[in-house]
Amino acid sequence: MSSLAVDSDSARDLRSAVPSRVGVTDTTFRDAHQSLLATRMTTAQMLPVAARMNRIGFHSMEVWGGATFDACIRFLGEDPWERLKVLRREMPDTQLQMLVRGQNLLGYRHYPDDIVERFIRRSVANGINIIRTFDALNDVRNLQRTIETGKECGAHVQGTLVYTVSPVHDLEHYTGVARELVGLGVDSLCIKDMAGLLKPDTAGRLIEALRPVVGTLPIQMHAHSLSGMASMAYWEAIQKGANIVDTAISPLALGSSQPATETMVVVLRDTPFDTGLDIDALIDVAEYFERIFRDAGNAPIRQTIIDTRVLSHQVPGGMITNLIAQLDEQRASHRLQEVLKELPKVRADLGYPPLVTPTSQIVGTQAVLNVLTGERYKIIPAEVRDYLLGRYGRPPYPIADSLYARVTADGHEPIAHRPADDLEPGWERAVEESAQWARCEEDALTYALFPQVAKKYFQARDGQPPAPAVKKFPIDLKSINDLVRAFAQASTLDSFACELGGTRIYLTR
Amino acid sequence: MSSLAVDSDSARDLRSAVPSRVGVTDTTFRDAHQSLLATRMTTAQMLPVAARMNRIGFHSMEVWGGATFDACIRFLGEDPWERLKVLRREMPDTQLQMLVRGQNLLGYRHYPDDIVERFIRRSVANGINIIRTFDALNDVRNLQRTIETGKECGAHVQGTLVYTVSPVHDLEHYTGVARELVGLGVDSLCIKDMAGLLKPDTAGRLIEALRPVVGTLPIQMHAHSLSGMASMAYWEAIQKGANIVDTAISPLALGSSQPATETMVVVLRDTPFDTGLDIDALIDVAEYFERIFRDAGNAPIRQTIIDTRVLSHQVPGGMITNLIAQLDEQRASHRLQEVLKELPKVRADLGYPPLVTPTSQIVGTQAVLNVLTGERYKIIPAEVRDYLLGRYGRPPYPIADSLYARVTADGHEPIAHRPADDLEPGWERAVEESAQWARCEEDALTYALFPQVAKKYFQARDGQPPAPAVKKFPIDLKSINDLVRAFAQASTLDSFACELGGTRIYLTR
Repeated sequence: MSSLAVDSDSARDLRSAVPSRVGVTDTTFRDAHQSLLATRMTTAQMLPVAARMNRIGFHSMEVWGGATFDACIRFLGEDPWERLKVLRREMPDTQLQMLVRGQNLLGYRHYPDDIVERFIRRSVANGINIIRTFDALNDVRNLQRTIETGKECGAHVQGTLVYTVSPVHDLEHYTGVARELVGLGVDSLCIKDMAGLLKPDTAGRLIEALRPVVGTLPIQMHAHSLSGMASMAYWEAIQKGANIVDTAISPLALGSSQPATETMVVVLRDTPFDTGLDIDALIDVAEYFERIFRDAGNAPIRQTIIDTRVLSHQVPGGMITNLIAQLDEQRASHRLQEVLKELPKVRADLGYPPLVTPTSQIVGTQAVLNVLTGERYKIIPAEVRDYLLGRYGRPPYPIADSLYARVTADGHEPIAHRPADDLEPGWERAVEESAQWARCEEDALTYALFPQVAKKYFQARDGQPPAPAVKKFPIDLKSINDLVRAFAQASTLDSFACELGGTRIYLTR
Repeated sequence: MSSLAVDSDSARDLRSAVPSRVGVTDTTFRDAHQSLLATRMTTAQMLPVAARMNRIGFHSMEVWGGATFDACIRFLGEDPWERLKVLRREMPDTQLQMLVRGQNLLGYRHYPDDIVERFIRRSVANGINIIRTFDALNDVRNLQRTIETGKECGAHVQGTLVYTVSPVHDLEHYTGVARELVGLGVDSLCIKDMAGLLKPDTAGRLIEALRPVVGTLPIQMHAHSLSGMASMAYWEAIQKGANIVDTAISPLALGSSQPATETMVVVLRDTPFDTGLDIDALIDVAEYFERIFRDAGNAPIRQTIIDTRVLSHQVPGGMITNLIAQLDEQRASHRLQEVLKELPKVRADLGYPPLVTPTSQIVGTQAVLNVLTGERYKIIPAEVRDYLLGRYGRPPYPIADSLYARVTADGHEPIAHRPADDLEPGWERAVEESAQWARCEEDALTYALFPQVAKKYFQARDGQPPAPAVKKFPIDLKSINDLVRAFAQASTLDSFACELGGTRIYLTR
């Protein structure tokens, strides 16, 4: 009786040249809720399940960075550093991972080197093990300082290739960027497909092309399920030697989030790429999230199951939504089709930047202006001008000559060096300006990253002692025990407030 | 500059021994709405987009059979035969496909051979090109009559392997069933994964094992996305030589339905398996469905995005829902875990039937009884007894000796022959009993399949002349033109009624 278990022949077919067990990075606490819940998951919602997730055996958990920092102080009234400390304590056996936008860190502009260095150091000191750093233009100079500092303080630093589709984003481009990253000493490489554009056959060929460049360094896949292709891309990439995949627990998976953790674990079980993770332990975690979303009434938002616009125009759905909003303001939403037609032209003129924050806004705004004014580049807004002058970094391909001539004719000076080289150190000033609120170095860093938002957050914090770390906390009795235990262990917290049914519960020491 | 387009080496890797262009069967009009909309899509909702779908170039469209027939007369007050005729007229260039449950046709019990033959003949006469036939037990004797009749009247007949996971469902089992089906002259083979259990590596090995058995016959994949594995299974199966995949238009895809058509088309584009379908034409179709669901307020139901229970217990979520309902009736829902533990034991005793209608009910009911009575097989209900006596067909593996002894000791006679051999011809009686309502042979067949439901449907039809073929019809102005044109061409219809906003619209000749 021939078994359906893997026999040695099939195993040989499947096996790649590099070690085959596949690692899983769970993104539930960062990218998954950033993608499906507008980054609104609270520390209180994470805490009751953190210890259970710690025991799963993930390669790592992405729990910090991206938009979580901003969302904590802007919307949740939470200290993001406090979240990191609590999670570190709750998950002693799991590598904690953060995402930084290169020299932009967790913000939307380049920060001076002294801020970057200090921020990376404090992140690692507070519990981060793995730093994934990326730049929207794949300009490695914008990653340099995060990579160097991360390595200096002993973190695992992961360099990132931002994936996009364009005539210049070929295997040569990606292997070139990878070579630079390896030269800077990254510990692993991530292929980041934020728009869900990566097709499985391309994923396979990318891995095969990158392997000789990165040698035995792990290659990690990060993709969003927008177009429905991500899980297939993972599968094919794994067959070709990818080592780690980013996934999210099923209630926070798919749509604009990652493929589901449970699915990938089962799919790889009994293959040479077995993750070794326990499916029943994962389902227990999944049930926790199903319950809190049901109780809290903040179910994940999957506006569409498949974003067909990505499949057709290779333009992320979120970007199209922004374009419609811009057109609406000018009462010109009927001109969307013209703008979508103009986009590829503008993108080509600008040297084919990947369409991700901030370049998606830069390309989109210019395309809208070109259509509305009826004349190409009649108006060039400040952020496009800065881009053209090299102030965001080096585009993947030279910008159009005419456009370059146009913007330099206005007397503006283009730069060829690393944009952050022009920035004055910022730490002293941040310390000074935040002195009246800051209780520690981390507070001053929060201020350095988001001065306006931090100021409001600090003022609110000062106005309501003792600050409840928990706003609203719908849990069942089983979870209350978890909470009490978590609180007992979380020595950095003085008090906890939560709500059960109509009853508020306070925990204090 | 190395391109990311397929180069000849990679193409060679990907290419299989059989012709590589992959065909797409769109299930939107049958399985997709059966899975996500409780089979409630009306002919009126299909009509405005049918001509557009006809032009896509699908290998085929599954538009009839399964639960659609029952739902038409039971819930929609529609004549299913009329739907078939209208779709045939609207889609002259597309092969129309139906699903039949072998000797059960579109019902839930075995029908006599004369009914089966006549039903198949009228299906083909009214426009069906491809008949997919399956049996819950993979007992090919239950497929014989549908296959023979389908071939006699010139249809393409597709034999089906029902996929499940058990100790006896190994490659040998599936190749054995496939060999029998090829012996009966099927034109193609379908791997039917109704529970989302098929893992990609298994899918690949199945295709490789089946290819020598079926030779150049096409192999088609049919899977549900419940567990999130279906698209990966498709991808891997295609690499190994599967020829056709079942997909649904994105607004009716994923969850308990099939992978999205648009996704698979884009994923395979520029590979040796290119479907050749136009993504923008598909998106136009997708937008139609998004619009009507929004307008009608009957959005597809995806209760959970990933059914983790399937991943853990290999028990379909729908079956667990049924078990809970059964337990609830006995105020014993707290015993679900015991029942889930009992299930594999009962399934083993019963010879490992795939868990699909009706065997899922048979196994589930017995497991519930075993738990509630506290004694295994203390009570054996009639349908389990019939199953044990061979009246549903031959189980994949012999039933447990003790159970066999038990049921035959009660004086019941087991059968070894094809169950339908025991059935008296039924056509004459159906004609007689339906005479007062039936207007044509098709009406008598409707009665033969569902006597009770048909009677009510006929009575309602007689009570309200002229029978509106359309109940509620939320469409926009563009679609009204489509409707008028469709009506002009649909010479078999005397009248049409639809509703727009609050206004009812009648079309008559």
